[in-house]
Amino acid sequence: MKQIKAAIVGYGNLGRGVEKAIQLNPDFSLEAILTRRPPDDLEILTPSARKLHVEDATSLVGKVDVMLLCGGSATDLPQQGPAFAAMFNTVDSYDTHAKIPDYYQTMDGISQGAGLVSVISAGWDPGLFSLNRALFQAMLPSGSGSTFWGKGVSQGHSDAVRRVEGVEAAVQYTIPLAAAMEKARKGEGDGLSTREKHIRECFVVAKEGADKAAIEESIKTMPDYFADYDTIVHFISKDEYNANHTGMAHGGFVIHGGKTNGSRHTMEFSLDLHHNAEFTASVRVAYARAAYRFHQEGRTGAFTVLDIPIAYLSPKTGDELRAELL
Amino acid sequence: MKQIKAAIVGYGNLGRGVEKAIQLNPDFSLEAILTRRPPDDLEILTPSARKLHVEDATSLVGKVDVMLLCGGSATDLPQQGPAFAAMFNTVDSYDTHAKIPDYYQTMDGISQGAGLVSVISAGWDPGLFSLNRALFQAMLPSGSGSTFWGKGVSQGHSDAVRRVEGVEAAVQYTIPLAAAMEKARKGEGDGLSTREKHIRECFVVAKEGADKAAIEESIKTMPDYFADYDTIVHFISKDEYNANHTGMAHGGFVIHGGKTNGSRHTMEFSLDLHHNAEFTASVRVAYARAAYRFHQEGRTGAFTVLDIPIAYLSPKTGDELRAELL
Repeated sequence: MKQIKAAIVGYGNLGRGVEKAIQLNPDFSLEAILTRRPPDDLEILTPSARKLHVEDATSLVGKVDVMLLCGGSATDLPQQGPAFAAMFNTVDSYDTHAKIPDYYQTMDGISQGAGLVSVISAGWDPGLFSLNRALFQAMLPSGSGSTFWGKGVSQGHSDAVRRVEGVEAAVQYTIPLAAAMEKARKGEGDGLSTREKHIRECFVVAKEGADKAAIEESIKTMPDYFADYDTIVHFISKDEYNANHTGMAHGGFVIHGGKTNGSRHTMEFSLDLHHNAEFTASVRVAYARAAYRFHQEGRTGAFTVLDIPIAYLSPKTGDELRAELL
Repeated sequence: MKQIKAAIVGYGNLGRGVEKAIQLNPDFSLEAILTRRPPDDLEILTPSARKLHVEDATSLVGKVDVMLLCGGSATDLPQQGPAFAAMFNTVDSYDTHAKIPDYYQTMDGISQGAGLVSVISAGWDPGLFSLNRALFQAMLPSGSGSTFWGKGVSQGHSDAVRRVEGVEAAVQYTIPLAAAMEKARKGEGDGLSTREKHIRECFVVAKEGADKAAIEESIKTMPDYFADYDTIVHFISKDEYNANHTGMAHGGFVIHGGKTNGSRHTMEFSLDLHHNAEFTASVRVAYARAAYRFHQEGRTGAFTVLDIPIAYLSPKTGDELRAELL
């Protein structure tokens, strides 16, 4: 079997997740891992992969079929996306929702110019959740859909709690509200705000001697982050925090309720993830397979999950898929 | 807006459902309904649509963009599919799972020869469930998936109960077992048989004077249909039957559990349908949009839900989808 030659750019949680995901997909080989750190400092899992500085990426042109970009959306991808798309087929999970249209235009222009393929925003939201929002709306155009996140860790809100005076460690879980989910299933989810759909639960380790009542008050009244939400604050020991609250669980639900004529229907897609980064990495690898195949077919430009047939994500042939899964 | 000109072949539950679904999709116009009955006998909902005998289909060549084939898979589609695919773009929901590979080959050859597009097996199973089975397997190749049907009416099993001596009317619901669904969520769903995943619940109206104990015994011991299942039989009055058991509710779950490295994840897709035929019709219309677009792009041959990007199902533009749903 000819393997798809892949390389990883950025070796944080997501990059390591991609490395593990590639090991589960025998039609891929990992050629290289690129980093901004001194490459020799990296401890990687794949002995056969080269360790390179990102500045040396040009040396891989023609030797790698697809680059899996694992940087963050805030500062890394706006630079790395265009730079790599000019030289390689790429896949990323750019997730700043409001800026996706602009990012798409940039990547599309560069990839078309280079005669290459870029797949953008291929994670679970944006990504698989987007796929289902579009699918559901097309199936039940008269209905309304709603996305719920959680139960899972919100990194931004956890950081906000950690900045409160007297807090030593903290994590914040976003939890979808069952009543709002029921509304969505009945097709009444339109216009529900994020705060009507979720509560926020914080587990906080207070510094010794800190004023817990003041900490709780500071969290619950924090503008933008918590003031408009139902917020629950628990104080726990450092041991309990370390034992139970350092995981990366996440997930969520896309729910769409709608009618055909008089009859009501509910469509639902959900993810229950015990390791957010590893699952996102797994999505990324499947879309890297599609990027490679699109390029093999001579297609060029930027694509999202909405533009890619599901068959392109699978290592199986069309005949196998039709026989086994249809 | 240029509308997609559609026609319906076969005016049973599904054909009527398609007619209603087209009314909810303003980018479609319904040009004609074809039937094997005397066309003037049809009472249809769309005054502007022509009523034609199926034998007169040739008169629509060049006047219809896509034919929605609404016949059954047992006898209608094996004839109608190839006959119509030679003249029109078509969409059907051919659902004899074991024969789909052969049907695909036949339709692909004819559609390619005619320079047209056929979309086959575009319902919910096969169809949207197939889409998710393939998606889940590609995302979590190390995991295992399982499909559950119900709660919903099984037509074949209802018919079998109706054939039991002393039965006046009957309906059989297939109900997924919660314990089996939990197994599937943990990635332990592989190899679960249909009977390990479902129970069968029958609501029976007995004829006057019939021996209810004998009826129950006949049902529960019926080979193939019930003998291997946990089966529950309720006797009800004709009034209760008419009031509560003549609906077309159905649905089900595709559940996939798998690991990335050490972390467990669950992916789930579910449908809760209050009118099976109307929902299937709605799926059909969305895939008719894709068939039309594929043809506009010059593609030819047979396609399944696995070959069609989700964006092709939506009336929205790529820009709209990226801005609103990604």
